[in-house]
Amino acid sequence: MSIEKLDRALEAEIDDLAAQGRAKAEERVITRYLPPLGSKGPRYCLAGMDKQFIRMNSNSYLSLSNHPKLIQAADKATHDFGVGPGAVRFIDGTFVYHQALESRVADFVDKPGAKIFNSAYTANCGLALTLSTPATHWIGDQLNHNSIIRAMRIANVPSANKGIFHHNDMDDLRRCLDQVDPGVERVVVVFDGIFSMRGDNAPIDRIQAVVDPYVPRFRDGVITVVDDSHGIGAYGKSGRGTPEFCGRQPDIIVGTFGKAFGVNGGFIAGSATLVEAVRQKADTYIYTNPLSVADCAAATSALDVCDSAEGLKLLSNLGRRTQQFRSGLCDLGMETIDGPHPVVPLMVRDTRKTRELVETLFCNGVLVVGLTFPVVPKGDETIRFQINAAHTESDIDEVLALLKQF
Amino acid sequence: MSIEKLDRALEAEIDDLAAQGRAKAEERVITRYLPPLGSKGPRYCLAGMDKQFIRMNSNSYLSLSNHPKLIQAADKATHDFGVGPGAVRFIDGTFVYHQALESRVADFVDKPGAKIFNSAYTANCGLALTLSTPATHWIGDQLNHNSIIRAMRIANVPSANKGIFHHNDMDDLRRCLDQVDPGVERVVVVFDGIFSMRGDNAPIDRIQAVVDPYVPRFRDGVITVVDDSHGIGAYGKSGRGTPEFCGRQPDIIVGTFGKAFGVNGGFIAGSATLVEAVRQKADTYIYTNPLSVADCAAATSALDVCDSAEGLKLLSNLGRRTQQFRSGLCDLGMETIDGPHPVVPLMVRDTRKTRELVETLFCNGVLVVGLTFPVVPKGDETIRFQINAAHTESDIDEVLALLKQF
Repeated sequence: MSIEKLDRALEAEIDDLAAQGRAKAEERVITRYLPPLGSKGPRYCLAGMDKQFIRMNSNSYLSLSNHPKLIQAADKATHDFGVGPGAVRFIDGTFVYHQALESRVADFVDKPGAKIFNSAYTANCGLALTLSTPATHWIGDQLNHNSIIRAMRIANVPSANKGIFHHNDMDDLRRCLDQVDPGVERVVVVFDGIFSMRGDNAPIDRIQAVVDPYVPRFRDGVITVVDDSHGIGAYGKSGRGTPEFCGRQPDIIVGTFGKAFGVNGGFIAGSATLVEAVRQKADTYIYTNPLSVADCAAATSALDVCDSAEGLKLLSNLGRRTQQFRSGLCDLGMETIDGPHPVVPLMVRDTRKTRELVETLFCNGVLVVGLTFPVVPKGDETIRFQINAAHTESDIDEVLALLKQF
Repeated sequence: MSIEKLDRALEAEIDDLAAQGRAKAEERVITRYLPPLGSKGPRYCLAGMDKQFIRMNSNSYLSLSNHPKLIQAADKATHDFGVGPGAVRFIDGTFVYHQALESRVADFVDKPGAKIFNSAYTANCGLALTLSTPATHWIGDQLNHNSIIRAMRIANVPSANKGIFHHNDMDDLRRCLDQVDPGVERVVVVFDGIFSMRGDNAPIDRIQAVVDPYVPRFRDGVITVVDDSHGIGAYGKSGRGTPEFCGRQPDIIVGTFGKAFGVNGGFIAGSATLVEAVRQKADTYIYTNPLSVADCAAATSALDVCDSAEGLKLLSNLGRRTQQFRSGLCDLGMETIDGPHPVVPLMVRDTRKTRELVETLFCNGVLVVGLTFPVVPKGDETIRFQINAAHTESDIDEVLALLKQF
């Protein structure tokens, strides 16, 4: 049997990952959600544990996953049309809920149109499939998300057609632009809006200022693309994300409904022509079922909540709790990366200490993510905290008190 | 502005697709689902049309999307845990419903373990990312689904490490195996279980018989992988899919919950070690939110229905309606590809006639897919009909009567 032979080889690969410190720990399983009670925010139970946990490693920045309006919208859509679409979009797998979400999110990010995907991951892949030609050159930030890197692969972009600039380094971006072969017709500059492990943002205004003079050099110009998955809903005065924060729109926005909006799914927003090109060319849109109508209805409802007085209150609470946590770290003399984003990295700068602190927090009912060598370089060891709008003042105090003891 | 320049270039690309006859028509939008009534199966309303339509282009073979048990399961899960997971699997985005579905589907396909994905598309990508090494050689059927082809890309498999055999041609598969470089450590033979445009199946028993003698030649053997998206739930005596139909298990099964089971999402099933390797190495599993708990609960419920007396009745009804339609085509002297699968291709073998027939059916309330040149070679023009368990005897008679008139 081949499978025993394969198993032996895969076991060796897994052992190797473990020996390098790169293997992922066993998955913990959430068995129960406990809604906010008194001064406490939501709590979660894990399989095999009696304790209740504060989730400080969730991307659900606006804490909308359990919002009654979203749940009601999902239920209604399911009762109207069923649990699955039963077909891909172009073979009559398009329901009113898909169309409504596309129109709603385009409006939200102030672009003429949008196409939805099962995730921002497949949206990034779909965008690369749409834009890539043999005469297209791609330039990206060195810290871009895995899905952008894999998108280059799925679209078969050769190494010669790619450039990488140092994180948020405008001089280095200029260097990449200068190095583009003059025969190139189309340049795409792509970057995360918020860098998920650091909570800092791409300076879209400055990126656009660097890019603008290069536009006339290339037949199709220099297209800017932000993947604003961690920004949309959570960043900017009205939750429009990094473009709002920076006061400048890129040409194309990729985003998700799976983080601040608490649902699932991704999108590409841009010109009407781009959206039509995505529909014609993006295999990860064309050859797979779309989101369920329940996801679409919940996401549309999330955008509506975000755009209401209630949404602004959630956003403001998110900001206050983030500020409380950041100030608390500062008072404890702990190092972080400045900024208003709810991703708050605690720079521990030591692998053993990071592990111990993550473990202490876990034993005391707080879920966080620790990044240790070799996942990050030695000296860059970090614990990522993520603030959510439903965290209470007392929740944040509780976490800070634990950090103080350490 | 770059976007106007890009738009001009994309417009030219779209025009070019249209001129070639490769552009996808505008999406129709389903506005209403009408449950079965009397002798009529389910009907659908489309935006801008008064007519009600029979969907004969849906993959929902067991017609489970609107099953009360699935809807109830989805609702309950949403009320328990909310509409989205808020995190990726390894950062506490794993809920009991994910674990339950993985265990349920592994049991269903009789493999030791399974990992779920957002779609079979990303499952195929994830499997390629898990198995590919520089010393891995891939061999595939020429008619494999787009997601398998793109999976080779995302995993950066070079052309030299790939072979393609003529559709279901065992001699040609043998030729591909003979041509593998002796330095190769791992060979993967991958094929659709059911070929979606033809309804014929991969002869897994014969494939395995061809492959077996080659196993000792390579360090990790020759691994067989079926993407049984159109088979699982709809094919074989108890709906186990193509392996059950052929009486032989391949090493690895990829499948979907989005076709016969009427929900959304995909999976990889295989050995416990393979499943752990997927968890450690498959970027399309690691770096994206998992399915919603609603999808998981509905899919688990679909597997339970499929395994019940009710499921066997649905499967038997699906078989009877498929047989009725196939016999009807035969009585009309029309050409198809033999076999028991609910994908029934009508070989029209003329582009103009195919277009006219698709249009006639549409005007009379029947949704089907037409495949014309250059999407298929000249002479291979086809209309694909897909039978679902909820189609009634009278529905099938109605469609056959329309075909008779043509």
